[in-house]
Amino acid sequence: MARITDPGQLAEAVRAGNRAALARAVTLVESRKSSHRAAAQDLLERLLPETGRAIRLGITGVPGVGKSTLIDELGTNLTAQGHRVAVLAVDPSSTRTGGSILGDKTRMERLSRDPQAFVRPSPAAGTLGGVAAKTREAMLLCEAAGFDVVIVETVGTGQSETTVAEMVDSFLVLTLPGAGDELQGIKKGVLEIADIIAVNKGEGENAVRARSAASELRAALHILAPAEDAWSVPVLVVSGLSGDGLDPLWATVLAHRDALQKADALAPKRHAQQVRWMWALVEEALRQRLMSAPGLKGRLPEIEASVREGRRPAGAAARELLALAGLSEG
Amino acid sequence: MARITDPGQLAEAVRAGNRAALARAVTLVESRKSSHRAAAQDLLERLLPETGRAIRLGITGVPGVGKSTLIDELGTNLTAQGHRVAVLAVDPSSTRTGGSILGDKTRMERLSRDPQAFVRPSPAAGTLGGVAAKTREAMLLCEAAGFDVVIVETVGTGQSETTVAEMVDSFLVLTLPGAGDELQGIKKGVLEIADIIAVNKGEGENAVRARSAASELRAALHILAPAEDAWSVPVLVVSGLSGDGLDPLWATVLAHRDALQKADALAPKRHAQQVRWMWALVEEALRQRLMSAPGLKGRLPEIEASVREGRRPAGAAARELLALAGLSEG
Repeated sequence: MARITDPGQLAEAVRAGNRAALARAVTLVESRKSSHRAAAQDLLERLLPETGRAIRLGITGVPGVGKSTLIDELGTNLTAQGHRVAVLAVDPSSTRTGGSILGDKTRMERLSRDPQAFVRPSPAAGTLGGVAAKTREAMLLCEAAGFDVVIVETVGTGQSETTVAEMVDSFLVLTLPGAGDELQGIKKGVLEIADIIAVNKGEGENAVRARSAASELRAALHILAPAEDAWSVPVLVVSGLSGDGLDPLWATVLAHRDALQKADALAPKRHAQQVRWMWALVEEALRQRLMSAPGLKGRLPEIEASVREGRRPAGAAARELLALAGLSEG
Repeated sequence: MARITDPGQLAEAVRAGNRAALARAVTLVESRKSSHRAAAQDLLERLLPETGRAIRLGITGVPGVGKSTLIDELGTNLTAQGHRVAVLAVDPSSTRTGGSILGDKTRMERLSRDPQAFVRPSPAAGTLGGVAAKTREAMLLCEAAGFDVVIVETVGTGQSETTVAEMVDSFLVLTLPGAGDELQGIKKGVLEIADIIAVNKGEGENAVRARSAASELRAALHILAPAEDAWSVPVLVVSGLSGDGLDPLWATVLAHRDALQKADALAPKRHAQQVRWMWALVEEALRQRLMSAPGLKGRLPEIEASVREGRRPAGAAARELLALAGLSEG
């Protein structure tokens, strides 16, 4: 950040839907400088009344499943229909590599040039919890800037998927037909949080395989889903490349949202997410405080090793960690 | 506890396999008195070298699935074969009701009278984390007392199942054929942690339905399981009532254990569980310290409400909580 903008002025510009101001605001919430943190919180408090009006959609799938192509196509369709679409990302690998998904904007070539869209890479530093917190705050800023569809992309690694599912209304899992007749398996943990599943790359020669993969998945989900589930997870066939199936996919997102609203479950879902998010932030801060305690760092490897190898009870080790961090009960 | 036994003497008696001493030792680790905590830790450190030799099996299933009847039968079979069997429980509902699963020992009538068995109800106070920590410590004590099979039972509620899966080698999910032709659905989150699934009550008139439910489940799991999974979850039909299928079930538990060992995965699995447990205890302690901070309790409802209703950003609320608890960064 070259300059700290006055939060009041920045809030005004974001509220007016100015994309450059929104980009600056997101950079501000991503900043780790403590002076920036205070300004960012001021900004968020000012804009909070303007948030919450978007359709929040999470999308996951393993690398190669075609997330970017699909989001590029879906997002472009949506802006053509008059929506304003923001695309954010949670990519825990970016905390290690410094790179990030969406980092290469050419991955969403049309959408990143679309004036009705805002595409933002994953913050490139911090723990998963830290990255996710910034993405959540960026989502609120996008909503305040009048974006009525916010898509949060993540890669197919367990923890980041759960994290994104915790910040959206609907969670879409993209998968592929496998080689031969086999379906590419779906990680079990992902089924738990999927609201919609789409078999991607269902174009051309793949169409038959994709349809048969989808019907297999449908059958499996039908067998496994408890009868009392209010929403039974639909399985669609789509092609991000050709655009086929994207209209039904969006209709399904809206149907899921409708179902939540009719069950008076959308607002409670968001409310519960917000409270859990607050507690996650508290835990993250406590963990960071613990890990940065001067006395702890040198001892940690030996303490962990003694527990790993069964030489010390976990309880005794936990108490030593707390004592070293000056956080003992007293 | 009427008296604190000297940890050295108690350790000796536990090591000798004395069930009354084991019961006292478990009571000691369950105690919340701080003087007892120190003695309990002393005891655990003494016995730690004797632990880790049992087959650790977790069992879950919704109320009515027939867990107790099955464990009674399976455990009695095992003691007849020369095993010594301990049955513990993690029941988060016991923290509210004061009652607990296994509390009524007549639920496992034969096993609780079997001199080669040790049946212990769920600790009846504390958070899920607290209850689980005590059960884990009780498991170690049982191992030190020479019990070579430890079964940890839990009810079918998401979080307690994950918690139990985190302390055992193999996790068995019991389910039932549903009414009519329908399979009683399996909660999605449970699939993620199941190593073995058994359709229970497969006796008499139910046998056909149970077999068809099992084959449906098998097909569904086959479709969903990623090809790279080393262990594909078997689905068995059992009857806790008649005892049918319990020998194959136990053989499957041993086969899962063998598969882990052949892949050099059993020890690493336990090691990772122990380290995660240590961190879970650290987090639990930090959370308790936070929640018991004098300044926090009165303000908490209003802070949570403001976040829930979207009046305050979660980040600002989290910082206020930390400040009220005297745990701010500085």
